[in-house]
Amino acid sequence: MNEQRNPWQIIDGKEMYDNNWLTVTHYNVINPSGGAGIYGKVHFKNIAIGIVPLDDELNTWLVGQYRFPINKYSWEIPEGGGPLSEDPLAAAQRELLEETGIKAANWRKIQYMHLSNSVSDEECVVYVATGLSYHTSMPEETEQLVVKKIPFDEVYQMVQKGIITDALTVTAVLKTKLLLLENKLAL
Amino acid sequence: MNEQRNPWQIIDGKEMYDNNWLTVTHYNVINPSGGAGIYGKVHFKNIAIGIVPLDDELNTWLVGQYRFPINKYSWEIPEGGGPLSEDPLAAAQRELLEETGIKAANWRKIQYMHLSNSVSDEECVVYVATGLSYHTSMPEETEQLVVKKIPFDEVYQMVQKGIITDALTVTAVLKTKLLLLENKLAL
Repeated sequence: MNEQRNPWQIIDGKEMYDNNWLTVTHYNVINPSGGAGIYGKVHFKNIAIGIVPLDDELNTWLVGQYRFPINKYSWEIPEGGGPLSEDPLAAAQRELLEETGIKAANWRKIQYMHLSNSVSDEECVVYVATGLSYHTSMPEETEQLVVKKIPFDEVYQMVQKGIITDALTVTAVLKTKLLLLENKLAL
Repeated sequence: MNEQRNPWQIIDGKEMYDNNWLTVTHYNVINPSGGAGIYGKVHFKNIAIGIVPLDDELNTWLVGQYRFPINKYSWEIPEGGGPLSEDPLAAAQRELLEETGIKAANWRKIQYMHLSNSVSDEECVVYVATGLSYHTSMPEETEQLVVKKIPFDEVYQMVQKGIITDALTVTAVLKTKLLLLENKLAL
């Protein structure tokens, strides 16, 4: 199979919903098997960004907030959205400072993903940040965030136990754990 | 902060789009800081399911397909959607058989996540399947899938190199690698 060729044909598309963060479009399509079908696509206007800040004693920081779409409280690494036109690293540095008051001397991109590629084009990128210094946080007005400093291995246990369920956080923590086990993370 | 209390208040909601897989609703809300705002929520009618089948020689199977929403070809673990009312394990067993022709004697749930909790309520669950036997695959009519058997460590390298970007697959592979490193996976 030719991986380059898109086997989906679009007959027409109609925008069904739009807000500052996403656009939902309904497409009439011909599917890869040649049959008529429909596809509802959610386009994201921002890339999701997550940061694992690590200090010299292997502590990290979690942010707690009530997540409207899942109707549940969620503990997560510092996260935010960056416009697709912006350098994700700049957005990551801004989000970490805003949410936790932390600046970092060293930034390392550890993972890039598509979060839900059967429905949306949402991308995410995860960084590990080290060489930390501590300043004043500036959370956004709409956010009611709780920030806590916590040993990284405790966070790893929270992932193992299913207490943390946010995909960006789970992946970031598993990847960071692997880097630590494989001795590939200079602190 | 009381983690149980939802600090978001819904003023009203209007369904903007609906198809067989998702519903998009626009809400007028009072945000946690007491300000007026809006929230566009994408509700998923299925839970996303992924399976890492592992044979005794540590081979696994990948499925390749062109993903419409990201307009890219994607190599992934066998995946599918199960109705929220169905036992996800039954859906996982059906999807694995349909896509790869594999039945497994042993199933282990290794991760549960919310894939994009700032916008959707999409859940996913990942299994490792061992004790494999080989039957006839029955892919769905709309799918044009390429299935390949491949050493698990090669798949881990594909994740490291950024060749694999699907979040469910990335997480499943990182978690499986950790279980293997920690000697917690009986084959």
